[in-house]
Amino acid sequence: MAEGDSVVFIGKKPFMNYVTGVVMQFNSGAKEVTVKARGKYISRAVDVAEVVRNRFVQDAKIKDIKISSEEFEGEEGKKVRISTIEIVLSKE
Amino acid sequence: MAEGDSVVFIGKKPFMNYVTGVVMQFNSGAKEVTVKARGKYISRAVDVAEVVRNRFVQDAKIKDIKISSEEFEGEEGKKVRISTIEIVLSKE
Repeated sequence: MAEGDSVVFIGKKPFMNYVTGVVMQFNSGAKEVTVKARGKYISRAVDVAEVVRNRFVQDAKIKDIKISSEEFEGEEGKKVRISTIEIVLSKE
Repeated sequence: MAEGDSVVFIGKKPFMNYVTGVVMQFNSGAKEVTVKARGKYISRAVDVAEVVRNRFVQDAKIKDIKISSEEFEGEEGKKVRISTIEIVLSKE
């Protein structure tokens, strides 16, 4: 896998699944892992990044954080906006 | 008020209170407004920043985003970690 290709998408699975997912990517040689989430899972993405960095991969740094919006058509054709986050963790 | 002094801390009040708070800071001449939140309110902080930027202050840019952790003593002296976010919005 090319550098920067590792992505972990945060959802409703148990919290530690995502932490382990990121840690495993680093342990298999990834220099960068991107944690992505939408809507209410954004807080969780920040938690995952912070727990990885503080407890498991202490040489991991936050390289970049982007926030953005996605629009899609909800019920009855209404446009719905949802926020997104991408946190890029990198290891020296 | 010096530039960069405007802070809006996101909590459990109605969503639009915070949006209006940020917009009013810009309208009273602030060049930068920082949106801060902790824990589960982080998703909301991202929503506030995105709604301000997309609907109300369209020349506002995201200048910086920082995530971090705070530790405090919870019940029975246990250490509790909580994630934080700071989103700096700036206007040209």
